[in-house]
Amino acid sequence: MCGITGYIGNKLAYPIVINGLRRLEYRGYDSAGIVLNENKNFKLFKTKGKVSDLEEICKGLKSDATVGVGHTRWATHGVPNDINSHPHLSNNEKIVLVHNGIIENYDTLKIMLTSKGYTFKSDTDTEVLVNLIQFMQDTQKIDLSTAVRLALNEVIGAYAIAVMEVDHPEEIVVARLSSPLAIGIGENEYFIASDASPFIEFTKEALYLEDGEMANISLKGVDVFKIKDNSKVNPIIQELKLSLEEIEKGGYEHFMLKEIHEQPKSIMDTMRGRLLVEEGIIQMAGIWDYQEKFLNAERIIIISCGTSWHAGLVGEYLIEDLARIPVEVEYASEFRYRNPIITDKDIVIAISQSGETADSLAALKLAKEKGAFIYGICNVVDSSIARLTDAGSYTHAGPEIGVASTKAFTAQLAVLSMIAIKLAKHKGTISKEKFNSLITELDSIPDKIEKLIKSTEEQIKKISLQYENVHNFLYLGRGYNYPIALEGALKLKEISYIHAEGYPAAEMKHGPIALIDENMPVVVIAPRTEHYEKIVSNIQEINSRKGKVIAIVTEGDIQVKNMVAEAIEIPDVSECFSPILASIPLQLLAYYIAILRGVNVDQPRNLAKSVTVE
Amino acid sequence: MCGITGYIGNKLAYPIVINGLRRLEYRGYDSAGIVLNENKNFKLFKTKGKVSDLEEICKGLKSDATVGVGHTRWATHGVPNDINSHPHLSNNEKIVLVHNGIIENYDTLKIMLTSKGYTFKSDTDTEVLVNLIQFMQDTQKIDLSTAVRLALNEVIGAYAIAVMEVDHPEEIVVARLSSPLAIGIGENEYFIASDASPFIEFTKEALYLEDGEMANISLKGVDVFKIKDNSKVNPIIQELKLSLEEIEKGGYEHFMLKEIHEQPKSIMDTMRGRLLVEEGIIQMAGIWDYQEKFLNAERIIIISCGTSWHAGLVGEYLIEDLARIPVEVEYASEFRYRNPIITDKDIVIAISQSGETADSLAALKLAKEKGAFIYGICNVVDSSIARLTDAGSYTHAGPEIGVASTKAFTAQLAVLSMIAIKLAKHKGTISKEKFNSLITELDSIPDKIEKLIKSTEEQIKKISLQYENVHNFLYLGRGYNYPIALEGALKLKEISYIHAEGYPAAEMKHGPIALIDENMPVVVIAPRTEHYEKIVSNIQEINSRKGKVIAIVTEGDIQVKNMVAEAIEIPDVSECFSPILASIPLQLLAYYIAILRGVNVDQPRNLAKSVTVE
Repeated sequence: MCGITGYIGNKLAYPIVINGLRRLEYRGYDSAGIVLNENKNFKLFKTKGKVSDLEEICKGLKSDATVGVGHTRWATHGVPNDINSHPHLSNNEKIVLVHNGIIENYDTLKIMLTSKGYTFKSDTDTEVLVNLIQFMQDTQKIDLSTAVRLALNEVIGAYAIAVMEVDHPEEIVVARLSSPLAIGIGENEYFIASDASPFIEFTKEALYLEDGEMANISLKGVDVFKIKDNSKVNPIIQELKLSLEEIEKGGYEHFMLKEIHEQPKSIMDTMRGRLLVEEGIIQMAGIWDYQEKFLNAERIIIISCGTSWHAGLVGEYLIEDLARIPVEVEYASEFRYRNPIITDKDIVIAISQSGETADSLAALKLAKEKGAFIYGICNVVDSSIARLTDAGSYTHAGPEIGVASTKAFTAQLAVLSMIAIKLAKHKGTISKEKFNSLITELDSIPDKIEKLIKSTEEQIKKISLQYENVHNFLYLGRGYNYPIALEGALKLKEISYIHAEGYPAAEMKHGPIALIDENMPVVVIAPRTEHYEKIVSNIQEINSRKGKVIAIVTEGDIQVKNMVAEAIEIPDVSECFSPILASIPLQLLAYYIAILRGVNVDQPRNLAKSVTVE
Repeated sequence: MCGITGYIGNKLAYPIVINGLRRLEYRGYDSAGIVLNENKNFKLFKTKGKVSDLEEICKGLKSDATVGVGHTRWATHGVPNDINSHPHLSNNEKIVLVHNGIIENYDTLKIMLTSKGYTFKSDTDTEVLVNLIQFMQDTQKIDLSTAVRLALNEVIGAYAIAVMEVDHPEEIVVARLSSPLAIGIGENEYFIASDASPFIEFTKEALYLEDGEMANISLKGVDVFKIKDNSKVNPIIQELKLSLEEIEKGGYEHFMLKEIHEQPKSIMDTMRGRLLVEEGIIQMAGIWDYQEKFLNAERIIIISCGTSWHAGLVGEYLIEDLARIPVEVEYASEFRYRNPIITDKDIVIAISQSGETADSLAALKLAKEKGAFIYGICNVVDSSIARLTDAGSYTHAGPEIGVASTKAFTAQLAVLSMIAIKLAKHKGTISKEKFNSLITELDSIPDKIEKLIKSTEEQIKKISLQYENVHNFLYLGRGYNYPIALEGALKLKEISYIHAEGYPAAEMKHGPIALIDENMPVVVIAPRTEHYEKIVSNIQEINSRKGKVIAIVTEGDIQVKNMVAEAIEIPDVSECFSPILASIPLQLLAYYIAILRGVNVDQPRNLAKSVTVE
C-alpha cells in the first residue's frame, strides 16, 4: 500500500502536498517523493525513508508551483531506496507518475518497451507504466489523458495513479482500479488523495473514483470517464464527516498504546445504540433488515485477512455455539482463487478494519457475482468494502493509526458477539434468560477491560523485561481462545519482530512440542472454562520439557498459578466473551516487549496499516 | 508391507527363521507365523501380534526340521487376527505360502476357485493364491515350481512369495514382482528374506531377484528363471557390505530417509488395484458402497491432527475444486469440544496414519453419535479408527517408522486425490476427458517422484549446508500448496527444532512480513500454476526486505529462478497434484538440515509416533 496525494489550484502546492503526505504516512513509509510543475518544469524530489526525510531534502525550496503530486511508499517491486521511490519520470522526462498498487504484467511490458529502446533506472513496475504512457504518445501523437487510458488498457493489476505532463501544468490525470482514490472539490482548487485526510481542512466535498474510472482534473473541473471505453461518468459528490482531532495521540507515547487504552471506550462506542440492556434487545439494522436471509442461511462464510481473520475465527465459535449456523472462515486471498462453492443460501461476511483490504474486497466481489448475500464489518466508514456490501455493521472503533490492530480487533469481536446473540435469540437456540444474561454481561465488558488494564499493566511491563532478548515464542489456546493465541502471536511478530507462533493447544503434541526447551517461552491462555483441565495437562507437558509458561488465567485461579512462571489475571466471564478480555494483556505484552527492543511500534518495518495490494 | 524369511540347509531351521522375523519386524507387526517341514510334515504356528507372541506359542518346540519359512505381517486385506496370519495352507494342506504384497484380482480368482469347490478360511488374498497354485497342480499334474509359475501368470498385483510343498522338503520356490526378495548363498545352505538382515551373520553373498523372476532353491543350488516364459536367468551374486542396522534401514542412514525414498513405491501401492487407467475407472469399495451418501452430502467435514490435518486441507481443495462438495477441515481437538453442528447429511472423514490418534478417535465418536456417516483414511489396518468408521480407504503406505510422517502423508494425498476424482466423475462435475487425463496423470506421479528425488537430492544436501545454524524459517504457498507450506514447516520443526512457520503467501503482508530481514530464510512453493504471478509478487516483496528465498519451482522456470537464492525444480503437473510433488523436496530439506544439526531424526525429542493421549 502506498499513499498518493496531489493538488491543483491557486495556492502553493508544496506545503499542501507535503502536509498530505504526512497524513498518509500510515499507508506506507518506505520512501517519499514529490513533484511540482513550475512553469512547465518538473521539480522532483524523492528519497528512501519517511516524509520527514523528504522535507529535509526540500529544505529551503522556493517554488511558486500551484500543481503537484506526492507519494509515500510501501515497497512492493524493488527495495526501498531513492531510485525506486516515486514519482517516476518517463524516458523523455515529460511525464511523471505516482502509483499505489501492483502492475502484475510489468515484466512483459518492460521487455516490449526495452525492445523499442526504452531504458529503466529503477526496478519498479511504476517506471514501466509511465514509459508505456510515453510510448502511447510517441507512437500515436495523442494527449496525456488518452495516452494514460490506452496504457491502462494494456495493464493487468491494481492501481491508483496520478499523472502529470510537463507541458500541461493545467491538468492532472488520475485513475483507479482496486486501490482507492478520492478527489477533494474546493473552490477553484482540487485535491487528490488515497483518502480524505490530506484535504479535510480545505474542503468537505469529495468524489470517490470507482474501479475502472479515471478523471482529468483541471481548474475548470473534474471530468470522470471509464478507462475501458472512454464513456462519460456522472460522479456523485459526498460530504465528509471525518474530523482531524481523532488522529492525535492523546498523550500516549504511541498510537498503539493509546488505542489499547481506548478499548473500554471503543467497545462501548461499538455497542452504543445497539446493545439495549434495559429494553432487552440488540438493535442492528444490518441484521434486522435481512433477518430472513440470516435465519435461513445454510452457511455463513467469513472472509478476511490478518487480525480480522482471527476475529472471524472467534466469530465462527460464537455463531456456531450460540446460533447453531455452520460457519466457515477463509483467508480472503485463498478464497478468491479457488473457485469457491457459494450459493444464494450462503451469507458471506467480510471483516476488515480499513475496508480497503484488497484481498477481502476481491473475494467479496467474487462472492457477490456468485449470488451470495454479502455483509461487511468494517471500521472505516464509506470504505470500499462498506460501499460494496449489501448490508453491514461498522465497528465504530474510531481511526486506528497504530499499524498493529488492537481496538479495531476487539470492536470486531464485540460486533460478532452481538450478531451471534441476536441471531441466537431469533433462531430460538438460546432461552430468553440466557439472552438477557449474555447481553448484561456483554454490557459489562468495557468496565472489565478498564479494570483489567489498570490491574495488569505494571505487571506486564515487568514481565516483558525478561523477554526482551528471546528469539521465539509460542502461544497456545483452546476453543474460543485458540484464535486469541494466533492473534497474540501476530501482535508480537508485527511489532517486536520476534518469531511468535500461535497454535491450538492440543495440536502442540503433533509437532510443535519438539521446539520446546528452556529457551522457548510459551504463552498459554488458560481461563477457567470447560477446557481448563485439558489446558492444565498441556501446561504440564510444557513444564516437563522445561518451557517457561506465561499464563492468562481467571481471577482467583490457584492451580495454574502454582505451575507457571507468570500468571496474568483476567476477570471472570462466560467463555464466549473471554477472547475480548484475553486479548488485552497480550496486546500489552507485545507492546512492552517491542518498546524494550526499540521498535517504532506504530510503524513497524515492512508493514502497512491497510493492505490494498494483493 | 510384510516381512518374509526362510531357510534351507543343514542347520535347525526354527531359530534361524524366528531370528529373521525379529529382524524384519520393522516391516510390520500385526501378526507373525512360521512353518517348518519336518519329515514331510508341516509344523505351522501363527498368531496375531508380534514375533514375541509367536515365540510364546512355540515355547518348548523341539523340531529337527532344516527347512522352513516365516512371515511378519502388516495387514492390508483382512483384519489382523490368527486366521488371517500367514503362512497359509492350500485346501489339500500340501502347499504352504507366505506373501508380501497385494493380489489385486484376488476377488475374481476367489470366485473362480469357489466355483470349483475350493473353500477359504481367511479374508486374505494370500489364501487365494496358494489355492490357485493347488488348482494348477490338481488340473495339470505338474511340479510345484511349474504350478507356481502358471498361477503367477494369472495374477495381477505385487508380491514376494515363498512356497513349500509338504512332500518335497528339499525345495523352496520363491518369486517376486514389485516387492523385494533376497536369497543369501551360504555353504550348502540358503536363506530367503525381504532384505538381507535375517542372514547377514551367516553369509555375505546374496542374490536379489528382479521383478518378474522366480527361483527354485534346493541344497543343490538356486535356479533363477522368468515367471513369464520360464527362460533361464543368470543371476548376479553380490557381496553385502551393509551392517545389520543399515540393512533394516534399506541402506539409508535413517528410516525417515528410507521412507522418503520409498514414496514412488508407497504411492504406487496406494493406487494399486484402485487407479485402473486402462479400464478408465477408479475402484474404491469404501466410496462405491456408499455412493449415494457421498453424492448427496451437503458437507464433508475432515477431522485430523498434525500432518494428517495438512492432508485434510489439501483434501478440501481437491474435493471442492473437482467434486464441488463444500468441505470443512477441523482440528480434531477443537472439533470435539465445541458442540459442532452435524447432521445426517454430513460426511465426516478422519485421517490418521496410525488410526489410533486419541483426539481424532474421540472426535469421530462424537460425530457418529450425532448421526454423521463416518469414513476413515488410515494406514494401519484394523486400527481403532478403521474399526469405528462406517467405511474407509487404507493408504497401504506400509509401516512408517520415522516419527516425522513422510510416505504416509503423500499416500493420504493420493487417496484423497482418488476420492475427489471419483466423486467428481460420478457427480458429473468433470468431463470424461478431464477424468481420463487426471487419472493418467495421477498414474504417472510415482515415476515423477522417482525422477524428482534423483535430480534434487544432491542439490538439497548442498542447500542445507547454509541453513544449519538459522533459528527461524518461513514457508509460503498459495492455493493447493498452502497446506504444503504448513507441512514443510512442520517437518522442519519436528526434526531440526528450528522454529519454522507456514503461511498462505498472501497473508504474509498482514503481519509476518515484519519478521523478514537478511536473517530470515523463506521457502516459497512457486510452481507454475494459476497463482504464479501472485507468488512472483510475494517473492519480490521478500526480496525488497532482503529475505533469502528458497523456491520450489516448475521444471524450466526462469522468472522465479532469476529472483531467488535457490530454486528446486519439480516436474510439471496439474495444480491438483503439485502438493504431492512439492512435499518431497521439503521433506529432504528438513531431513538434511536436521542431520547437520545432529538430531536423531527418527526419534526427535518430545514426540511420539502415534499420539494416543489427548
